[in-house]
Amino acid sequence: MKQRIHIFLICMALFALSCKNNTSTQSNQDSDSKNIEVYNDIDRIEPPNWWVGLKETKLQLLVHHTDISNADPEISYQGVSILEVHKADSPNYVFIDLNISAEAMAGQFNVAFKFKDGKTLNQTYELKQREKPAEDYIGFDSSDVIYLITPDRFANGNPQNDAFQDLKEKTIDRENDYGRHGGDIAGITNHLDYISDMGFTAIWPTPMLINDMPTASYHGYAMTDLYKVDPRFGTLEEYKKLSKTMSDKGMKLIMDMVANHCGSHHWWMSDLPFKDWVNQQEAFENQTELKNSNHRRTVNQDVYASKKDRDEMNQGWFVPTMPDLNQKNTFMAKYIIQNNIWWIETLQLGGIRQDTYPYPDKDFMSNWAGAIMTEYPNFNIVGEEWSTNPLLIAYWQDGHINKDGYDSNLKSTMDFAMQSTIVQGLKESESWGTGLVKLYDGLANDFAYTSPKDIMIFPDNHDMSRIFTQMDGNLINTKMALALIVTLPRIPQIYYGTEILMHDFENPGDHGLLRGDFPGGWEGDLVNAFSGEGLTEDQKDMQSFLKKILNYRKNSNAIHEGKTLHFAPENGVYVLLRMIEGETVVLILNKNEGPTSLDLKRFEETGLAGKTLRNIVSGEELVWGNTLELKQKGSIILTTKTK
Amino acid sequence: MKQRIHIFLICMALFALSCKNNTSTQSNQDSDSKNIEVYNDIDRIEPPNWWVGLKETKLQLLVHHTDISNADPEISYQGVSILEVHKADSPNYVFIDLNISAEAMAGQFNVAFKFKDGKTLNQTYELKQREKPAEDYIGFDSSDVIYLITPDRFANGNPQNDAFQDLKEKTIDRENDYGRHGGDIAGITNHLDYISDMGFTAIWPTPMLINDMPTASYHGYAMTDLYKVDPRFGTLEEYKKLSKTMSDKGMKLIMDMVANHCGSHHWWMSDLPFKDWVNQQEAFENQTELKNSNHRRTVNQDVYASKKDRDEMNQGWFVPTMPDLNQKNTFMAKYIIQNNIWWIETLQLGGIRQDTYPYPDKDFMSNWAGAIMTEYPNFNIVGEEWSTNPLLIAYWQDGHINKDGYDSNLKSTMDFAMQSTIVQGLKESESWGTGLVKLYDGLANDFAYTSPKDIMIFPDNHDMSRIFTQMDGNLINTKMALALIVTLPRIPQIYYGTEILMHDFENPGDHGLLRGDFPGGWEGDLVNAFSGEGLTEDQKDMQSFLKKILNYRKNSNAIHEGKTLHFAPENGVYVLLRMIEGETVVLILNKNEGPTSLDLKRFEETGLAGKTLRNIVSGEELVWGNTLELKQKGSIILTTKTK
Repeated sequence: MKQRIHIFLICMALFALSCKNNTSTQSNQDSDSKNIEVYNDIDRIEPPNWWVGLKETKLQLLVHHTDISNADPEISYQGVSILEVHKADSPNYVFIDLNISAEAMAGQFNVAFKFKDGKTLNQTYELKQREKPAEDYIGFDSSDVIYLITPDRFANGNPQNDAFQDLKEKTIDRENDYGRHGGDIAGITNHLDYISDMGFTAIWPTPMLINDMPTASYHGYAMTDLYKVDPRFGTLEEYKKLSKTMSDKGMKLIMDMVANHCGSHHWWMSDLPFKDWVNQQEAFENQTELKNSNHRRTVNQDVYASKKDRDEMNQGWFVPTMPDLNQKNTFMAKYIIQNNIWWIETLQLGGIRQDTYPYPDKDFMSNWAGAIMTEYPNFNIVGEEWSTNPLLIAYWQDGHINKDGYDSNLKSTMDFAMQSTIVQGLKESESWGTGLVKLYDGLANDFAYTSPKDIMIFPDNHDMSRIFTQMDGNLINTKMALALIVTLPRIPQIYYGTEILMHDFENPGDHGLLRGDFPGGWEGDLVNAFSGEGLTEDQKDMQSFLKKILNYRKNSNAIHEGKTLHFAPENGVYVLLRMIEGETVVLILNKNEGPTSLDLKRFEETGLAGKTLRNIVSGEELVWGNTLELKQKGSIILTTKTK
Repeated sequence: MKQRIHIFLICMALFALSCKNNTSTQSNQDSDSKNIEVYNDIDRIEPPNWWVGLKETKLQLLVHHTDISNADPEISYQGVSILEVHKADSPNYVFIDLNISAEAMAGQFNVAFKFKDGKTLNQTYELKQREKPAEDYIGFDSSDVIYLITPDRFANGNPQNDAFQDLKEKTIDRENDYGRHGGDIAGITNHLDYISDMGFTAIWPTPMLINDMPTASYHGYAMTDLYKVDPRFGTLEEYKKLSKTMSDKGMKLIMDMVANHCGSHHWWMSDLPFKDWVNQQEAFENQTELKNSNHRRTVNQDVYASKKDRDEMNQGWFVPTMPDLNQKNTFMAKYIIQNNIWWIETLQLGGIRQDTYPYPDKDFMSNWAGAIMTEYPNFNIVGEEWSTNPLLIAYWQDGHINKDGYDSNLKSTMDFAMQSTIVQGLKESESWGTGLVKLYDGLANDFAYTSPKDIMIFPDNHDMSRIFTQMDGNLINTKMALALIVTLPRIPQIYYGTEILMHDFENPGDHGLLRGDFPGGWEGDLVNAFSGEGLTEDQKDMQSFLKKILNYRKNSNAIHEGKTLHFAPENGVYVLLRMIEGETVVLILNKNEGPTSLDLKRFEETGLAGKTLRNIVSGEELVWGNTLELKQKGSIILTTKTK
C-alpha cells in the first residue's frame, strides 16, 4: 500500500505541475505518453478522467464538440486501444469505446480528432492511479447511523459562495422556503465534530451536483451537469476534503445519485446526442404535451399491468422540470454507470443512495447496481422505493427469490413500511390488535427479507413530515420511536434537526418547511444547536438522549450484528432484545402513563435472571429479578455491558 | 371402471346381508376371512373401516376398551399384517400399526385381542373397495364458485331431527342467536337445485360432525367425535346422499376440518390415551389454570419470536371449551390424517377447508396436507389464516420459496388481504392514492403468489360482518364487490344469503346475527328466498344479478384460466380484463355518480377495437369504439361471447 500511495503522490505533484505549464513532464510514463502537451481543444469529454486497474476494462467516452462526428479519433498509448467509435444522431457527439488493459499505466495521453479536411483537434485524457484498492471501499452497514442532511439548510460554512450571477437562480433568500439559503459543503465539514460526537458515523447529503435551474434549485435533484459540484455548495476540492476529513474520523460519505432524471436545464438538453436520449424526447423537442409519470410504481412487479401503464410509469417525466433519462439507450446506460463510478473513485465514497428507484428501467437498475457492486464488492447502495408494502421492499433487495427471476443487486432497500408502522403503533391506543402489537407484527415481516439488517430505517426523511410533527409534538413518543429505530436490526438514518425536535407543524409535509434551517448554521443565529445556546429544555433533552443512544450504538456489536428476540406486547409493554456473545441489549417500550410492574419471569429464555444491567441513558444499574417497576411511559434501553 | 363398480356393488350387497345376519358370508374373500362372524366386542376402533388400494399402505388403528393394553391383538388376513402394537399411557388404549399390502383384497377380518388370562375379545374390521380411483377426486378450483353454508341456519329439511334428549344441548331455539335452529343436511340436499341454478358449483358447509356441547353447539367447530355426523344435521347416509346428489349435478362438496382442536366434551377427554394427547393436558387434568392461545399468529414465520410466545400460540387453547390437540404426538398426527382420509373416501369429497390453519404445529400441517395431496393428487385444500398480510398468504401457499425452507403442501390460501382491500377501496372516496387504486395495487400483489388463481376470495364469511353491512347497506357497492370477486383470478366463495342482502346491521360482526336463518328454509317462513316470495325489490335485484354473473362464470374459460390485464384507475374508473383464446371478459368499475365518458383509446392493447361485446347482466350489446358512455356508478361486465 505504502509504495502505491508514494507513487500516487508523485504523480499528483507532477500532474499539478504539468497543468501549470500546460505541458506534461511526467517521467514515470511509458515513452508514448512522455512529455505530451496538455490540450483542451474539445468542448466536453466525459468522464473527464478515468483510472487504471478497474475490473471493468472497457470505458466509453462521450465527446461533445461541434461537428465532432466528422472526425476520426486516434489514441497512441500503451495498453489503451479504441474498440469502436459510435456516431450519434447529433453530429456534435461521438462515443468512443476504449479498452484499458492491465498493462495501461496511469498517465496522460492525447486523443487526436482528425477531420477529413486535415484539421486536428487534440484533447488530453488522463488515467489516474486508484487511491485505494476496490475492496477498501466499505459501504455503510448496520454498524452505522446515517445523518441525512439537506446541505442548503444545514450550515452556511462559506458565505462567499452563496450566489453566482452566472447561474439562473441568482439570489439567496432565507425567507423563501423554496429558495437558496446558503448552506454548503463547508458548513458540513465545519461541523463534523458535532455530527460525529452526536454518534453519527455516516452522512448522506442530498445531491450537491449543480442544479442550474431558475427556481427551487436548492434540493439538488434536478442536476444540470453530472460531473460538476454546485458552486453554491462549493468546489470539487471541498467535496473531496469533506470526504477525506470524514474518512479520517472513520465516517462514511454517501452520495445521493439520480439515474432517473436530470434538470431541464441540463447542458445536453439543447443538443441531445440521440433521438431517444430522454423519454418523450419528440414531445419535448416539438414542445407538444409531455406526460408526467403516472407514478403507478407497482407496474414493476405487477404481472397484470398493462403496457400502457408500464410505459407511462417508466417513460413519464417525474415532474415537468426533470427530463426522464432513457436508460434503455445503451449509451445513456453506460454514461450513468461510469459517472457514478467516477464519483466513487473521485470522492472515495462510502455508499450511494439512489433516488426514485422504481422509475428508471428496472433491468438497467439491476445492471447498474451489479456493475458497481462487482467493481466494489464491499460497497453499499440503498435504493428509494416509497412503499409501505413489504412485498416490494423484499422484491428489490439483492438475493430475494422473485417469481419473475429479477435480481436487483441492490443490497439495501428502504423500510417505509416499518416507518409508518412505528408511527401508527406508538400513537394509537393499546388493544389486542392495535398499538405496540403493530411494531411486533411489523418486525415479524423480517422473515421475508433477504437481509433485514441491510435495510434502512428512519423516523422521517427529507420528503416527509418531521417525526416530531408525525408524533403530534409528543416528546415521549418521539423518543420511543428513536429508541426503537436505533435498536432494530437495520441501518438507521436520521434527518438533521431531529435531535432538536425540528418540526413542520404549520403545514405538515411541506417540503420547504420540513427542510428548515438548522439553528446555529448561520452567522447571527440566535439559537445555536451546535453549542446548545438558546435551545429549549425539551430540545436539549432530545439532543442529549439521542447522543447517548447513538454513542452506545457505535460500539454495540449486539445491535450491529446480534440476534433479535422479541416478546408479543402485553399490558402496554413491548420488549425487544439484541444479543451477541458478551452483550445483551434490552429495549423496553412502555405505553402506560402510570407506574407498571413488568413480570420478568416471562423472559426466562433471555438468560438475564440475576444479571446486572445498565440504563444507557440514565446510567443507573439494576439487577434483573422477578419484576421491573416502570415508573412512566417511555423507552428504556438496558445493556449487560456495565463496564 | 365398470368391472370395479360391479364387484363393489356385489360386495356391498353381501356386506349388507352379513350385517343383517351378524355373520360374514362374503364369498369373494380369501380363505382366511371367508365366513367369519361379525364381532363387536370392542368399545371403539378407529378408523371404523379402511380401504384397499391406498398409496399409503400403513394404517394405525386406535383401539379403546377397558384394560385393552393387557391384550395381544392378532389378525389373520392375507395381505394384512401387524407391524407394531403401541401401548399408551392409559391402559384402555392400544394403537396397532398395520401394513395393508397390495395383495390385500376388500373384505372383513377379525382382530382378536387375547388377554393373558385366556379371555379373547373379537372385533370385525372391514377393508372396503374404493369407489373411484384417487385421480378422480377433483378438488375445487378457479372454475368453481363456492357457496358457504352454516347448516343450522340454512334450511330445516327434516324437523324430526331438530333435538335429541340424549345430547347436551337438548332444545331447538330459533329465538336464540347462539342456539340450535334446526337447519340440516336434508335442508341443503333439498335445495341443491336452487344453489346450482344460482350458479354455484361447490358447497362448503361449516362442520357437520357431532358437537355434543352444552351450549352454542350449532357452529360445529367443537367436535366431540370425529367419526360421527351430528344427528341434528342428519345421518352419515344423508351426508353421503348429499355428496352423491351434488356429484350427479357436477358439484363439489367441501368438508370443513379442524386439526387444531376438538370440543371439551369429546369422548376421549374423560380417558386420554397419552399424557400429551392435548396441549396443557396436565392443567386440564388437575383443573388448574388453562391458557388460551395468545393468537399471535406471526410466530409461525417470525424469526425473532420468543419460545414463550410460540408455545403460547401453538399450545394455548383456542377458547376454553376447545381442547388443543397436540399434533406433535405422532399418534395424534396419524389419527387426524387418517380421519380426514376416511371422510374423503366415505363422502367422495371435492375438497377440504382446514380451520385455524396457523394454530396447529406447522410442520404437522405440512405433513398433513402432503399426505392428503399425495394420496389424491388432484384434490384441493384451503387453509384459513385470517391475515391481511400478503406475506403470510404467500408463505402458506404450496411452492412458495420461503427463506426458512417451509413448504406447506397447501394449494389454496385465503385472501383476507384482498377482501379488506376491496371493501376499503370501494367505500373510500377517489384520489390519486385512495379508492379504486387500492384494488389495483392490491391485485398487483399477485406477483408474489405461487398461484393466485388457487387462492380463495370472498366478500365475507361466517366469521365476519356481512358484505352488505360492511358496505353500509349500499347495494351498488355490494354489487361492485361481487362483480370484481367473481371476475378475479381466484376461487370465489360466497356466504349463503349474500344473494338476498342478508346483513347484521344491528350489531355488526355478531356471530349469532350474521349467521341468520335463510328465509324460506323453515316451514311457515313468510319470506321465501328459494321461490322469491316476499323478497324486496333490492333483494330480487341482487339475487338476479348474482345468478347472471355466476352462471356466466360457470362456462367462462377466460375467468377460470385466462390471462389478467388491468389498467390503473383513472377518473374514478377501473378496468380489468380476463382473456383467453376466443373470449375476453371486461369488468368496468365506475365510481362516478353522474354520466362519464370512458376513453377507449387507452385500451388499444386489448385488441377490442371494433368488436361487439355483450353486457352479461343486461344482455345489451355494444361495439367497442372510441368512447364508452357510463350512465351511472356501478359495475359492468362485458364479454366478446355474444352468441
